Amino acid sequence: MRNRNKWHRNKASGKIGRDHHRLALHKPPVGASPGTLVQAGEANAVSIVLTAYSEHELAEQEIDRLEQLRDWMDFKGVVWVDVRGVTDLDALRQIADLFELHPLVLEDIAHVHQRPKLESYPDHLFVVTRIPNVNEGTLTEQVSLLLGNHFIITFQERVGDCFDNVRQRIRTAKGRIRCSGSDYLAYALIDAATDAYFPLLESYADNLDVLENTVMRSAERLPIERLHALKRDLSELRRAIWPQRDMLGMLQRDDSGLIGDDLHTYLRDCQDHSLQLLDIIETCRETAGSLMELYLSSINLRMNETMKVLTMIATIFIPLSFIASVYGMNFDGSNSPFNMPELGWYYGYLAVLLLMLSVFAGFLVFFIRRGWIGGQRRSDQDSG
Amino acid sequence: MRNRNKWHRNKASGKIGRDHHRLALHKPPVGASPGTLVQAGEANAVSIVLTAYSEHELAEQEIDRLEQLRDWMDFKGVVWVDVRGVTDLDALRQIADLFELHPLVLEDIAHVHQRPKLESYPDHLFVVTRIPNVNEGTLTEQVSLLLGNHFIITFQERVGDCFDNVRQRIRTAKGRIRCSGSDYLAYALIDAATDAYFPLLESYADNLDVLENTVMRSAERLPIERLHALKRDLSELRRAIWPQRDMLGMLQRDDSGLIGDDLHTYLRDCQDHSLQLLDIIETCRETAGSLMELYLSSINLRMNETMKVLTMIATIFIPLSFIASVYGMNFDGSNSPFNMPELGWYYGYLAVLLLMLSVFAGFLVFFIRRGWIGGQRRSDQDSG
Amino acid sequence: MRNRNKWHRNKASGKIGRDHHRLALHKPPVGASPGTLVQAGEANAVSIVLTAYSEHELAEQEIDRLEQLRDWMDFKGVVWVDVRGVTDLDALRQIADLFELHPLVLEDIAHVHQRPKLESYPDHLFVVTRIPNVNEGTLTEQVSLLLGNHFIITFQERVGDCFDNVRQRIRTAKGRIRCSGSDYLAYALIDAATDAYFPLLESYADNLDVLENTVMRSAERLPIERLHALKRDLSELRRAIWPQRDMLGMLQRDDSGLIGDDLHTYLRDCQDHSLQLLDIIETCRETAGSLMELYLSSINLRMNETMKVLTMIATIFIPLSFIASVYGMNFDGSNSPFNMPELGWYYGYLAVLLLMLSVFAGFLVFFIRRGWIGGQRRSDQDSG
Amino acid sequence: MRNRNKWHRNKASGKIGRDHHRLALHKPPVGASPGTLVQAGEANAVSIVLTAYSEHELAEQEIDRLEQLRDWMDFKGVVWVDVRGVTDLDALRQIADLFELHPLVLEDIAHVHQRPKLESYPDHLFVVTRIPNVNEGTLTEQVSLLLGNHFIITFQERVGDCFDNVRQRIRTAKGRIRCSGSDYLAYALIDAATDAYFPLLESYADNLDVLENTVMRSAERLPIERLHALKRDLSELRRAIWPQRDMLGMLQRDDSGLIGDDLHTYLRDCQDHSLQLLDIIETCRETAGSLMELYLSSINLRMNETMKVLTMIATIFIPLSFIASVYGMNFDGSNSPFNMPELGWYYGYLAVLLLMLSVFAGFLVFFIRRGWIGGQRRSDQDSG
Amino acid sequence: MRNRNKWHRNKASGKIGRDHHRLALHKPPVGASPGTLVQAGEANAVSIVLTAYSEHELAEQEIDRLEQLRDWMDFKGVVWVDVRGVTDLDALRQIADLFELHPLVLEDIAHVHQRPKLESYPDHLFVVTRIPNVNEGTLTEQVSLLLGNHFIITFQERVGDCFDNVRQRIRTAKGRIRCSGSDYLAYALIDAATDAYFPLLESYADNLDVLENTVMRSAERLPIERLHALKRDLSELRRAIWPQRDMLGMLQRDDSGLIGDDLHTYLRDCQDHSLQLLDIIETCRETAGSLMELYLSSINLRMNETMKVLTMIATIFIPLSFIASVYGMNFDGSNSPFNMPELGWYYGYLAVLLLMLSVFAGFLVFFIRRGWIGGQRRSDQDSG
Ligand SMILES: [Mg+2]
Ligand SMILES: [Mg+2]
Ligand SMILES: [Mg+2]
Ligand SMILES: [Mg+2]
Ligand SMILES: [Mg+2]
Ligand SMILES: [Mg+2]
Ligand SMILES: [Mg+2]
Ligand SMILES: [Mg+2]
Ligand SMILES: [Mg+2]
Ligand SMILES: [Mg+2]
Ligand SMILES: [Mg+2]
Ligand SMILES: [Mg+2]
Ligand SMILES: [Mg+2]
Ligand SMILES: [Mg+2]
Ligand SMILES: [Mg+2]
Ligand SMILES: [Mg+2]
Ligand SMILES: [Mg+2]
Ligand SMILES: [Mg+2]
Ligand SMILES: [Mg+2]
Ligand SMILES: [Mg+2]
Ligand SMILES: [Mg+2]
Ligand SMILES: [Mg+2]
Ligand SMILES: [Mg+2]
Ligand SMILES: [Mg+2]
Ligand SMILES: [Mg+2]
Ligand SMILES: [Mg+2]
Ligand SMILES: [Mg+2]
Ligand SMILES: [Mg+2]
Ligand SMILES: [Mg+2]
Ligand SMILES: [Mg+2]
Ligand SMILES: [Mg+2]
Repeated sequence: MRNRNKWHRNKASGKIGRDHHRLALHKPPVGASPGTLVQAGEANAVSIVLTAYSEHELAEQEIDRLEQLRDWMDFKGVVWVDVRGVTDLDALRQIADLFELHPLVLEDIAHVHQRPKLESYPDHLFVVTRIPNVNEGTLTEQVSLLLGNHFIITFQERVGDCFDNVRQRIRTAKGRIRCSGSDYLAYALIDAATDAYFPLLESYADNLDVLENTVMRSAERLPIERLHALKRDLSELRRAIWPQRDMLGMLQRDDSGLIGDDLHTYLRDCQDHSLQLLDIIETCRETAGSLMELYLSSINLRMNETMKVLTMIATIFIPLSFIASVYGMNFDGSNSPFNMPELGWYYGYLAVLLLMLSVFAGFLVFFIRRGWIGGQRRSDQDSG
Repeated sequence: MRNRNKWHRNKASGKIGRDHHRLALHKPPVGASPGTLVQAGEANAVSIVLTAYSEHELAEQEIDRLEQLRDWMDFKGVVWVDVRGVTDLDALRQIADLFELHPLVLEDIAHVHQRPKLESYPDHLFVVTRIPNVNEGTLTEQVSLLLGNHFIITFQERVGDCFDNVRQRIRTAKGRIRCSGSDYLAYALIDAATDAYFPLLESYADNLDVLENTVMRSAERLPIERLHALKRDLSELRRAIWPQRDMLGMLQRDDSGLIGDDLHTYLRDCQDHSLQLLDIIETCRETAGSLMELYLSSINLRMNETMKVLTMIATIFIPLSFIASVYGMNFDGSNSPFNMPELGWYYGYLAVLLLMLSVFAGFLVFFIRRGWIGGQRRSDQDSG
Repeated sequence: MRNRNKWHRNKASGKIGRDHHRLALHKPPVGASPGTLVQAGEANAVSIVLTAYSEHELAEQEIDRLEQLRDWMDFKGVVWVDVRGVTDLDALRQIADLFELHPLVLEDIAHVHQRPKLESYPDHLFVVTRIPNVNEGTLTEQVSLLLGNHFIITFQERVGDCFDNVRQRIRTAKGRIRCSGSDYLAYALIDAATDAYFPLLESYADNLDVLENTVMRSAERLPIERLHALKRDLSELRRAIWPQRDMLGMLQRDDSGLIGDDLHTYLRDCQDHSLQLLDIIETCRETAGSLMELYLSSINLRMNETMKVLTMIATIFIPLSFIASVYGMNFDGSNSPFNMPELGWYYGYLAVLLLMLSVFAGFLVFFIRRGWIGGQRRSDQDSG
Repeated sequence: MRNRNKWHRNKASGKIGRDHHRLALHKPPVGASPGTLVQAGEANAVSIVLTAYSEHELAEQEIDRLEQLRDWMDFKGVVWVDVRGVTDLDALRQIADLFELHPLVLEDIAHVHQRPKLESYPDHLFVVTRIPNVNEGTLTEQVSLLLGNHFIITFQERVGDCFDNVRQRIRTAKGRIRCSGSDYLAYALIDAATDAYFPLLESYADNLDVLENTVMRSAERLPIERLHALKRDLSELRRAIWPQRDMLGMLQRDDSGLIGDDLHTYLRDCQDHSLQLLDIIETCRETAGSLMELYLSSINLRMNETMKVLTMIATIFIPLSFIASVYGMNFDGSNSPFNMPELGWYYGYLAVLLLMLSVFAGFLVFFIRRGWIGGQRRSDQDSG
Repeated sequence: MRNRNKWHRNKASGKIGRDHHRLALHKPPVGASPGTLVQAGEANAVSIVLTAYSEHELAEQEIDRLEQLRDWMDFKGVVWVDVRGVTDLDALRQIADLFELHPLVLEDIAHVHQRPKLESYPDHLFVVTRIPNVNEGTLTEQVSLLLGNHFIITFQERVGDCFDNVRQRIRTAKGRIRCSGSDYLAYALIDAATDAYFPLLESYADNLDVLENTVMRSAERLPIERLHALKRDLSELRRAIWPQRDMLGMLQRDDSGLIGDDLHTYLRDCQDHSLQLLDIIETCRETAGSLMELYLSSINLRMNETMKVLTMIATIFIPLSFIASVYGMNFDGSNSPFNMPELGWYYGYLAVLLLMLSVFAGFLVFFIRRGWIGGQRRSDQDSG
C-alpha cells in the first residue's frame, strides 16, 4: 500500500542529491572523539514502546520517562524496547547508560548510514540492519538491534516499520514466539526486515516491465532518465542487502551463547531469502542494461531509416531539378544556333520529360536493388 | 518434442512481467510466522503416486487418501512418494505431519521460487532442484526432494516432468537402481533433472545460430528484441543451474550417513554435467553479446554508406543546379552591357555545359580519390 | 572550508600530468642501494612539533634542534613527534638514527607515493596512511606513522593536516586519550585520516549531482571532460582508501603487543568507515558511468530529431521545387504544340498549385503516420 | 601444415551451428541409466595400435581382435593401447570389460564433449584432455587417457593426433622415456597435447595481426564477421585450456601412488605452458575487443567527415541558389516600379555576382574558423 | 635516456605481429622431449662476465672459455656469472652441465617467453624475471636467475640491462652488498629489475597525458591507433609484472634455506614496488578507456553540431527557394487571368520578399526556441 505511490514520488522529488544529503547529515567533525554524536537537523522527540512477554504474560506500554525501563530490568521473559527516532541525543545517551552500551555502538545508532553488520560485545550482540522505508530522498531506514540475554532494543530512524505482524504474533501468541527467548525475537525482526524487500523489489520489476513494454512498442519514447533512476535505486538496494547476507552468515557462526542452536535453521532460511533478493536485483540490473542497449540500437536503426528516406528523396529529385534548371536558363537562341536549340525542337519538352522519367526509374531500380525500398517494408513486418 | 514449439510460445506470450508474477504469487505477508503458507491462486487437487520397490518387489499406486501412505511406512525397500502440485496446502500439511517435516521445509516446498540447495535435517536431507518446464511465463519448475533412509518424497510444481525414464528403469529393473537404496534414487532423479537442461539449451543455441545467420546476411533485419528475450532466458537458466552445482558439491561432502560412499563417483559425474551446462550458457551469452556488437556496427556502417550516396549526389548536383540557376536569372541585357552578356555569346550555352561537365568530373575525381566510389564496390566484395 | 574551492582549482589547473609528476619526483636511480634517498626539488626546512602527555602532564613544543628530542626519550607517557615536510633528507636521516629506523622505512617516508600499509619491525610498527590534501596536482598526502611503545612519530608531506581536533582532545583531556597509550593516539590519528575523506567525497557527490541535473535538463551541455576528471579523481581516491581497509584489518590481527586488546573495537569501527567510503566511491563511479550512457543516448536521440526536421523539410520541398522548376523551363511553345502547352492552359497555374498542395499533403500524412510529427510532441510531454 | 588452411575452412564452413551439433550428437536420453552409451551417427570401425616397451624391448602392433590385448596384460614394462575412434560402442564395451572400467568412465569416453579433468579410481587415474584438431565444425578433439600401473589407454575421437613425436621418442629411445614408467608416458602425452595449442594460437594471432593492419589502413574494410568468428574460436579454446590447468594442478597433488615424485617438476612445467597459452588467449581477446572499438570509432569519424563535406557544399550553394532563383522570378517590371527594378539596373548583374561571392567567402571563413577546412587536412597528416 | 626515443620507435615499427613472432621463435616441436632446445634464428656468440667478491676481495673478468668457471667453484664469497645471449645452445648446455641444471630449467632459459616465476630445486632456486628492454617488437627481456649457496647465474636475452648500479655498488662496496651472501645479490638484481619499470611506465603516462590534452583541445585529432597501441603495451607490461608480484611472495615464503631471514623485509619492499607498478598500470588503463569514451562522445557531439548547421541552412533556404521557383514559372498570364496574376501586381515583388522574410524569421524563431542557435553559443562558452 505504502509502496503503491512510490514511483510517482521518485519521479516528483527527482531524488538527485539524496546520497549527498544523507552523508552530510550525520558525520561528527573530522578527528572527533570516538562516540561523538552530532545533532542532525532538529531533535524530534523519541517515542519508545516496550513489549514484555513470557509464555503466559504480556505487557505493552509507551515509555514516557526512561526510568520506567528500569522496572523491567528483572522481568523473567523477553523485554523488547522499541525506540523510534534517533535524533534526540540526550535520550539516546540515557538509554546507553542504562544498558551500558559502548560509545561506538551509540555512534552507529545515531549516525544512520551504517551498512548491515554484526558486532559482538561482552554481554550483547549489536546488529545493524536496514528495512525498506521509501521516503524523501532515501529508500531504506537503518534499524539497529541490540540482543541481550533477556532483552532486545531496536532503534529506528523514523516512525513506521515492517514489524507489525511480529507484534501481532506476540499478542496472539501465534507460533513459538511467546515460548522462545530474545534470540528468536531478533530472528523474527531480521526476517521481517528481509521479507519487506520483496514487495519493494516487485514494484521495481513492475516498472522495468513497463519500460520493457515501452521500448518494444517504440524505443524513442523510453524515458531513459527513469531507467537511470531505477538503476541508481537498484544499486542502493544491493548495497543494503549484500552485507545483510554476510551478517546473517556471521549470526549463524556466532559463539557468544546468545543465539540458540535451534535458531540456525531459521537464520539459514532468512539468509536464503537475502540470496533470492540479490538474485532478483541482479536480474533487474541485467534487464536494465539490456534495455539500454535495445534503446540505443533502436535509435540508431530509426536514424538509419530517416536517413534513407532523405537520401532517396534527395537523390531522385536533386538531379531532376538540375535538368529542369538547365532548361530554365535564358541563353539567347536568336544570337547563335548553339544556344539551347533544344528549346525550339518539336519534341524537346517531351524528350526532357522522358529523360527525367528515365532518371527517376533508374534511381528507383537502384534503391530497390539495395533493398532500401522493398526491404524496408519487409523489415517492418519482421519486427512488428 | 515438448521443446520444439517453445520458441513460438516465448514470442507469443511476450514473457514480460513473468518474474514479477512469479515473485508475487507465493510470498507470505511481511513478518509472518516462519512456515506460514500462502495460497497462490486457486488450490488444485494434488495428485500423488507411490512407487515402492526392492530388488524383487515392485508396487506402483495412485494415492487417493493420504492415510494410505502410512501402510508403506515399514516397507523393506525404497518408497518413492511423488507429489504433483503444491497448491493444496492442506494436503501438504498432512504430508508434513506424516513425515515430520520442519515448517520451513514445507514453506520452501509450497513457495516455488527457491534456488537449488541442500539442507540437512536430523533424519532426512532436503534438496531443492529445478527442472526445465517451459510454461506460461516461466522456464523451470521447482522440484523439492526429501531423502530419508528408506524413502524419497518429491514435490513438483506442476504435472509433467523429466523422470519417466527413471520410472521405466525401476519397472524394468534396468541397471542397479532396484538393488540400491533411496540415495541412488535421489541421484537418479537429480541426474535426470540436470540432463533435461541439455535439449533446452540446444534449442537456445539453435535460435542463436539462426540469429547469427540473420545478422550475417543483413544486420538490419536482426530482431533485437528476440535477442533481448534470449539473453533474459539464459540469465534465468544460469540462475537455476549455478546453485545446482554447489548443491551437488555439498551432497558429495555430506556426512549425514544418508549418502553411500559408492555414490560419490555418480554425484561427481552429475556435477560435471552441470559444469558443462554452465559452459554452454556462458558460450551462448558471449555469442549473444558479440551479435549485439555486430548488429550495432553493421547499422553504423550502413548509415555511413547511405550518407555517402546522399553526399555524393548532393555535392555534385547542388553546385550544378546553382550554375543553371544563375543563367536562369532575368537581368535585362538590353539596359546594360554588364547584364549577363554571356547569354548572348555565340558559344555561351556550350561554355556553360562545359563548365558543368568540369565541375561534375572534378567531384567525381574527388570522390574516387577519397575511395568513396571505387572503394565502395571493393568493400562490398570483401564482406560478401 | 578548504574543500569549498577545490573544484575550481581542479578545473583551473587542468590536473593533467599529475600522476606522471608525482611518479617522477621521488624514485632513486634504478638499481640503487635499498634506502637510497633522492632529493625531490629543493629541500624545504622541516618543522617538528613535539607533544608529550600523560594523564596529568602535557607539553607542546616546537623542536628546533633534533637533540632536543633526546630529552624526551625517557618521558613516562606518550611522546608524539610530528614532522612536517620530508624533503630535508639530512633531518630525516638524523631522526632515523635517533629512533633506529630501518633504511627501507626511511625510504618509504621520503618517497611519498606509497600505498597505505602496515609493516611490523622488532620494536615498532610502521604504518603508511594517506590523508586528503587537495593541492597542486594531487588529491592526497602521505602520512607515515611510527608506533613505538611510548612514542608516535608522524611524517607529513606538507604542512596542514586533519589532526587539529586530535590535538585539541589532547589539550583538553577530552575522552580517554590522555589516559591511554600510544596505540590509542595512533588509532585517533588513523581514524581522523579516514574521517577526513567524508567531506571530500561529499563534494564529489555534489559535483555529480550538478552534472546529473545538467544532463537531465539538456544532455548537450554536459561538460564531459569534467566527468572524465571526476572519474580520474575517484579512481585515485579508491586507490588511496582500498589498501587502507586492509591495513586496518592487519592492525586488528597484529600480535606485536603494541596494540592493546581494547583497541580492536575502535579499529573495527574505523575499518567500517573505510568500507563506507568505498561504498560511496562505488556509488559515485556507477553514477558517473550511467551519466555517460545517458549523455550518449541523449546526443543520439537529439541527432535523430534534427535529422527528422531536415528530412521532413527536404522531403516536402525538394519535390515541390522540382515541379516549379519544370514550369520554369523555357521551351518554345510557339514552335510545337508539344512544348509545354500547360503554360498556356486557362487553369494551368491553378492546376500546378493544386498538384503542389497534394504532394505537400501527401507527405504530411506520411510523416504523421510514421509518428514523426504528432509523435514528436507526445514524446516531449512524456519525458518532460 | 595442417593448420595452414584452417582459416579458409572456417570461413567456408561458416562454423555456425557447430556447438549445437556437437551437443546434440552424444547425449543419452534424459533420465537414462548412468553409463548408457548413445550411438552418434554411424559407427566407424575402431582402430587400435598397441605399443609396448621397456628399457630394452619394443613392440608396436595393430590390434585386430581385442583378445590380442589379453596377451600383453603381464608384460613387464609399459603397454600403451591407443584407440582411435569412439563410435563403435561394442568395441568400447569390450575394452571396458577387459580393463574393468567404471561405466561412467566409458560414458565420458564415448560422449566426446567433456571438459579436461582428472578422476581417481581405485587402480587407475582417468584423465580427459583435449587436443587441437581443426575439423568440420570443431576446433578440438577429446582424448581420454587411462593411467594404470603398467599401462596407458588413450581414446581419440578421430584418427590423427599430435603424438607422433612421442611415438618417435619411444622408438628411438630418445630421452628417458624408455627407462620410465607409464606415468612418464602419460606426462609426455599431456605435454604434447598442451604444446600442440601453440601453433594453433599462433595462427589466430596472425589473423588478428592481419585484421589489425586492415583496420589501420581503412577501418571500413574490416570484415567484422571474421572478428566475430575469431572471438568465438578463442572462447572455445579458452574453455578447452582453462580446465586443463586445473587438471595439471590436481595431477601434481595426486596421492594415488601412480604418479612418481620425480614427475612433479615436469607436470609443473606443463602447467606453466598452459598458463602461457591462457596469457596468449587473453592477449588476443583484449586485442580483438580493442580492434572492435577502433573499428566503431573509425566508422563514426568517417561519417563525421562525410557529413562535413555534405554540410559545407549544401551550406554554401543552397543560399547561392536561392539568390539566383530570386532573380529568376518573372515579376512584370513594366507594370510597377517596385517589381524587380534590380533586373534593369546598369550594374545589377555584377552586384548580384558580388553578393554571391560575399556569401561564398563568408561561409568559407566560417568553415575555416570552425576548423572544418584547414583542420581536416591537418588531421589527415596527424593520423597518417 | 634509452627510453626517451621509445615512442617514436613504437610508432615506426608498427609493433604489429610482435606477439606472434616472439611465440614462433622458440617453441620445440610438439611432443619433443622435455628439455629439447630449439635454435631461434642464428646463434650469436654468448658473452659471459664473472664477478666474484667477498667483503675484502673483488674480481671481475670476461670468461672466454667455460672451463675458466671451474676455477671459481670453490671461491669463498659470492660468484656472479652473468651470461648475455641465450642463442648459443652449446654454450648453454655446457653451463648447464657445469652447474648440474635440470633440463627443464635450461629449456626455460633458452625459450625466452616465460612468465616470471620461482621454482625450487634441491640445491638452487630458479627465478625467472623480466626487465624492460624496449626493442624491435618487444617491450621486455627475460632474465633467468639461478640462486645457489655461493653463486648467482643470470641469463639475459640480449646485451644491455638495468644492473649497472648493482655492479657499481659491488665495486665501491657501497651499502651491505659486499658483506652479504648470494641471496642479497639476488634481491638486489630483482629489485633493480622491478625499479626499471618505473621510468618506462612514466613515459607511457606522459604519452597518455599528451593524448588527454589532445582530446581536450579537439577530440577529432586524437590518434586512436596510438591509443590502441598504448593499451596493447600496457597489457603486455601488466602480464610481465603481475606474476612478478606472486614470485616475490613465494620468495618470502621459501623455506629452502637459501634466503636469509633478514631478507624478508627487503623482498616485501620490492613486492610493494611491484604493487605500485600495477597501480600505475591500472590507472593508465582506466584513463585510456575513459579517453576512448571521451573521444567517441566528442565525435558524436560534433556530428550533432554539423547536422544542426546543415539542417538550419537547408530548412531555411529550401522553402525560400521553392517560393522563388514558383514565381520563376512561365505560365502565360496573357491567356488567362488565373495564370500568375501576382506577377503583374503593383506590390507583387515586395509581397513575395515580405513572405520570404516572414518564413526566414519564422524558422529563426523556431531554431532559437529549440536552443539550436543561442544555445550553441552558450554551450561553447561552457566547455571552453
Ligand atoms: Mg571519528
Ligand atoms: Mg561506527
Ligand atoms: Mg521506522
Ligand atoms: Mg524470510
Ligand atoms: Mg544471481
Ligand atoms: Mg525481472
Ligand atoms: Mg518470513
Ligand atoms: Mg525458506
Ligand atoms: Mg512437474
Ligand atoms: Mg548426467
Ligand atoms: Mg566457462
Ligand atoms: Mg553456441
Ligand atoms: Mg552513432
Ligand atoms: Mg631500489
Ligand atoms: Mg619501500
Ligand atoms: Mg600535511
Ligand atoms: Mg571514524
Ligand atoms: Mg559497494
Ligand atoms: Mg551519488
Ligand atoms: Mg545420465
Ligand atoms: Mg560423465
Ligand atoms: Mg585424433
Ligand atoms: Mg597478439
Ligand atoms: Mg610443454
Ligand atoms: Mg593474463
Ligand atoms: Mg614439450
Ligand atoms: Mg618450461
Ligand atoms: Mg639484457
Ligand atoms: Mg596517468
Ligand atoms: Mg625497489
Ligand atoms: Mg589498483
